[in-house]
Amino acid sequence: MTGRTPAPAELAAGIAAGETRALARAISLVENGHPSARELVRLLYDRTGNARIVGITGAPGVGKSSLISALVGRVREDGLKVGVISIDPTSPFTGGALLGDRIRLSEHFLDPGVFIRSMGTRGHPGGLAEATLQAVLILDAAGMDVVFVETVGAGQNEIGVATAADTIVLVLMPGSGDAVQALKAGIMEIPDVIAINKADQPLASALRTDVRQMLALGGGPTPAIALTEAPSGKGVPELWAAIEAHRASLEAEGGLEERRARNLAAEVHAIASARARRHLENAVSDDKELRRLLDDVRRRKLDPLTAVHEILGKVFHIDDEDDADAR
Amino acid sequence: MTGRTPAPAELAAGIAAGETRALARAISLVENGHPSARELVRLLYDRTGNARIVGITGAPGVGKSSLISALVGRVREDGLKVGVISIDPTSPFTGGALLGDRIRLSEHFLDPGVFIRSMGTRGHPGGLAEATLQAVLILDAAGMDVVFVETVGAGQNEIGVATAADTIVLVLMPGSGDAVQALKAGIMEIPDVIAINKADQPLASALRTDVRQMLALGGGPTPAIALTEAPSGKGVPELWAAIEAHRASLEAEGGLEERRARNLAAEVHAIASARARRHLENAVSDDKELRRLLDDVRRRKLDPLTAVHEILGKVFHIDDEDDADAR
Repeated sequence: MTGRTPAPAELAAGIAAGETRALARAISLVENGHPSARELVRLLYDRTGNARIVGITGAPGVGKSSLISALVGRVREDGLKVGVISIDPTSPFTGGALLGDRIRLSEHFLDPGVFIRSMGTRGHPGGLAEATLQAVLILDAAGMDVVFVETVGAGQNEIGVATAADTIVLVLMPGSGDAVQALKAGIMEIPDVIAINKADQPLASALRTDVRQMLALGGGPTPAIALTEAPSGKGVPELWAAIEAHRASLEAEGGLEERRARNLAAEVHAIASARARRHLENAVSDDKELRRLLDDVRRRKLDPLTAVHEILGKVFHIDDEDDADAR
Repeated sequence: MTGRTPAPAELAAGIAAGETRALARAISLVENGHPSARELVRLLYDRTGNARIVGITGAPGVGKSSLISALVGRVREDGLKVGVISIDPTSPFTGGALLGDRIRLSEHFLDPGVFIRSMGTRGHPGGLAEATLQAVLILDAAGMDVVFVETVGAGQNEIGVATAADTIVLVLMPGSGDAVQALKAGIMEIPDVIAINKADQPLASALRTDVRQMLALGGGPTPAIALTEAPSGKGVPELWAAIEAHRASLEAEGGLEERRARNLAAEVHAIASARARRHLENAVSDDKELRRLLDDVRRRKLDPLTAVHEILGKVFHIDDEDDADAR
C-alpha cells in the first residue's frame, strides 16, 4: 500500500477492518482534494452515524487545541476511540504551534486509539465544508466513538465552517471581548456548551457572570458553562460531562435525529454552493467572453448586476430574474 | 411620488438631479430587495466611480458607529457630501442602539449633505453583498463625495461582507483580543488603516504597541494607526487624514484603478454565487425529487456527496466531476 494511490474499495475495506494505515491514507486523499475521496465516502457511508461529533469552536489563542488534547485524555479513560479534525490554521495540530504545544500533544500521537489530522484548503472543489465532512464521515466509519472538530469562529465563515456536530462547544477566555459581543449581538450562534478556558486568570469568573447574564436575556435554552484550565486538566471532566449531558438530553427528546437531518441538509447545500462557486470562477477565467464582461464592468460600460445576470445565464443556464420575482 | 413605486427611469432622473427624496426611495427599493433596484443601478452606473468608498469594519461594541458619526462631522467641515451605509445589525444607525447613541447621531439626520441608511437582509437574491453594492453605487451616482460602509468583521462572512472599498479601516479597542489574534493568525485581512478607539482607556497604547509589533512581523505595507476617542472627537482629524493619505498614495501609484477592478470582479463573483445558492435552495425546496435525495441522505441510503452531484446536475446542468478533475 505504499507509493501508488490504493483503489477506494481497497481503502474502504481497510478502514472497515480498523487499519490505521488505511485510515491515514484515506484522510490524505481528503486533504489533497483527491477525486477518489468522494468514492470512498460513498462506499463507507452506510457504516457512519455512530460517532458522537463534537465541534470545538472559538477565536485563535483561546486554547482550543490544548483543551481538545485534555478532552482526548478524558475520553480515552473510558476506553473510547477518538478522532480529531482541525480546520483552524493556527492550531498546533495543524502546525502553527510552539514547540511546547507540540510536545504536549505528542502523547496522543503515539496512542493507537487516537487519530489526529488537520485539514488544509488545497484544491477542494466543495471547499473546507466538503473536506471536513469527508474526514468526519471517514473517521466515523473507521469506528471512532468520538470525533472532535476544531474550528475558528462559530459557523459564520469558510474557516469557521459550520460543523455537522451533535454538540457545539464555544471556547472563551478572559479577554474574549469580541466573541462575547458577537454573542450578545446575536451574530454568533448560541452554542450548546461554553468552556471558559484559562480559568486561572483573574477575570474568568467575571466573564462567566457576564456570559450567564447575557444568555439569560436571550430567553432560549441556556448552555452549560464549564470553567477549564487545559494545561492542568482542571474542569475538563466537568466539560466532558456537560458535552455528554447535552447529547443525552437531545437523544432523550428525540432531537438528535432531527438535528442530524438538518445538519446534513445544510452541509449538502453548503457543499453544492461551494462547488457551484468554483465552477463559476473556473468558467469565468476560462471564457474570453465572460472575462470581457468583467472588463466592461471596470470601464463602467456594463453595470455589475447585468454582468451577474449574463454570467449566471451562460454558466448555469438559469434566468435569475425568476428567483427575484418568485419571492 | 408617494404611494406607488416610481419607475426606475423616474427615480434615476431624480437621483441625478440631487433629489434627496428620490435617493431615499431608491435605497428603500434596495433594502426591500425590489427587482427594480437592479434596473436603477443599470441606469445610474455610468454616473458612478467618483465617490471615495471607505469601509469601516470591526467587532460589535468597538464604537464604529460613533466613530463614523465623528468622521462625518469632520468630512462635512470640508463641505463634502457624505453617505453612510450600515450593514452591522448592532449599529445604532440600524436601530440596535441605546437612546444616547441615537441622539448623538441625530444631528446628521437633519443635515441635507448627509444620507444615512442601514441594510437588512430581507429578500436579496444576491444577499447582503448585492444590497450593499447597489446602495453604494446609488449613493455614488447621487453625487456623494464620500461613502462610509460599516460592517462587522473583515470581509470573512456574509455579515462582514467584503466591501468594494478604496480604503478599509479596522476599528479596534482595548480588549479586542479576538480581532488582534485573528490578525496575527492571518485569518483577518490586514486593513489599510487601523483606528484604536476608546483611546482614553488605560490599555490603548499597549494595544497600539502590540498591533505595531504584529504588523512589523508581517513584512507587508504597514497601515497607519490612529488613536481615537469618538465621543470627544479626539484623533478623528488624524484618522481622516490617514484615510485620505492611503487613497492618495494608491492614486499616486496607479493602484486605485487596479484595486477597484479587483473589487468589482470579486463583487460580481460573490453576488453571482449568492444568487446561484439562492436558486439552488429554491430548486431543492420546490422539487420533490431533490427533497427525496436529502431524505435518502438522512436515512444513510445515499451519501451526501453523491446527493450534491445529483443536485448540481439537475439544477445547474453541470457535471461537477469535470471541475474536480480539472484541478
